[in-house]
Amino acid sequence: MNERRWILFATILALLFALGVRTGLHAKLGASPQDARQSDRSAIQAVLDAQQQAWNRGDVDAFLTGYWHSSELTFSGSSGVSRGWDGVLARYKKNYPDRAAMGHLDFSDLEFHHLGPDAALVLGRWHLQRDPVKGGGDIGGVFSLVWQRFPDGWKIIHDHTSAVTQ
Amino acid sequence: MNERRWILFATILALLFALGVRTGLHAKLGASPQDARQSDRSAIQAVLDAQQQAWNRGDVDAFLTGYWHSSELTFSGSSGVSRGWDGVLARYKKNYPDRAAMGHLDFSDLEFHHLGPDAALVLGRWHLQRDPVKGGGDIGGVFSLVWQRFPDGWKIIHDHTSAVTQ
Repeated sequence: MNERRWILFATILALLFALGVRTGLHAKLGASPQDARQSDRSAIQAVLDAQQQAWNRGDVDAFLTGYWHSSELTFSGSSGVSRGWDGVLARYKKNYPDRAAMGHLDFSDLEFHHLGPDAALVLGRWHLQRDPVKGGGDIGGVFSLVWQRFPDGWKIIHDHTSAVTQ
Repeated sequence: MNERRWILFATILALLFALGVRTGLHAKLGASPQDARQSDRSAIQAVLDAQQQAWNRGDVDAFLTGYWHSSELTFSGSSGVSRGWDGVLARYKKNYPDRAAMGHLDFSDLEFHHLGPDAALVLGRWHLQRDPVKGGGDIGGVFSLVWQRFPDGWKIIHDHTSAVTQ
C-alpha cells in the first residue's frame, strides 16, 4: 500500500506541475483580457495626451517620443512616406517651423482596436487652431496610428495622417 | 527501493507531461514563424492582386471582397472616415462612377509588417492611369492597410488612403 500512496502522491504532483505551467502561460498570454485591454488603452491615451501637451508648448522633440525610435518608423501623408525617427522629426520641423504654424492641437473621436496582445490601431481626428494670417489658418483631418508594445511602453510604429477639407 | 523507483518514475512522468504542455503550446503559438509569415504574405499579396484585377475589369463589388464584410470596417480618406462595408462600397461607387473615372489601377512599393500572429500592416502606393479628359487624368498616392486573419482568410479591416501630388 505504501507504493500506491507514493504513486498517488507523485501523480498529483505531476498534475499540479502541469497545471502550474498551463496557468502560468495562460496568465502571461491572455488572463483577464478586458482588464489588460483597458490598461493598454489607458497607456496609449496617456501617450496621446502627452503628445498634445508637448505640441501645445511648442516642443516637437517631446511630441516625437510617442513614436518608435527606429529607422523602421514610417509616416504616410500628403508628401508620401517619411522614414525613420529622424525623417519623421525632420518632416514635422519642416511643415511646422514655428509656434504660429504649430497652432493649438486637439485630438478627438479616438477609436481603439486591439490587433493582438501587443498591437493596436487607433483612429482619430486632428485639428490645428491657427492664426489666419501668421499661422496659415485652421487645418485638420484624420489619422490612423498603428501601435506596438515595447519593453518601455506602447509606441506608434506607423502614422498615416491626412487632411480633410473643413 | 521499490518506493524510490516509483517516485523516480512518477517524477519523470510529471516532467514529460509538463514538457508536453509547453511544447504543444509553443508549437501552436510560434512554430516556424518565418514559414508562416511567408505564407501570410503570399495570401495577402493574392488578395491585393485580385483587387487590382477586379478594379481593372470595372468590378467594384469584386474589389470589395478584399475588405472585412462588417459594419466595423473603416476607410479613412480625403472625406474623413467611411464606416461599414456598405459605406465603403458607396464611397467607391460615388468617387468612381464609371470605367473612365476608375481608369487602370496599379499597386506598387508594397511593404509588409506583421503585428502578431493574426494581424498585419501593409503600406503601398496606388496609381490610377486615366484619360485626361474623360477620366479626370492620373491620380495616385499612398495607402496603409490593416489586415486581420479570419476563418476565411486575410481581410482589410482598416484602409487609410490619401493622395500625393504627382
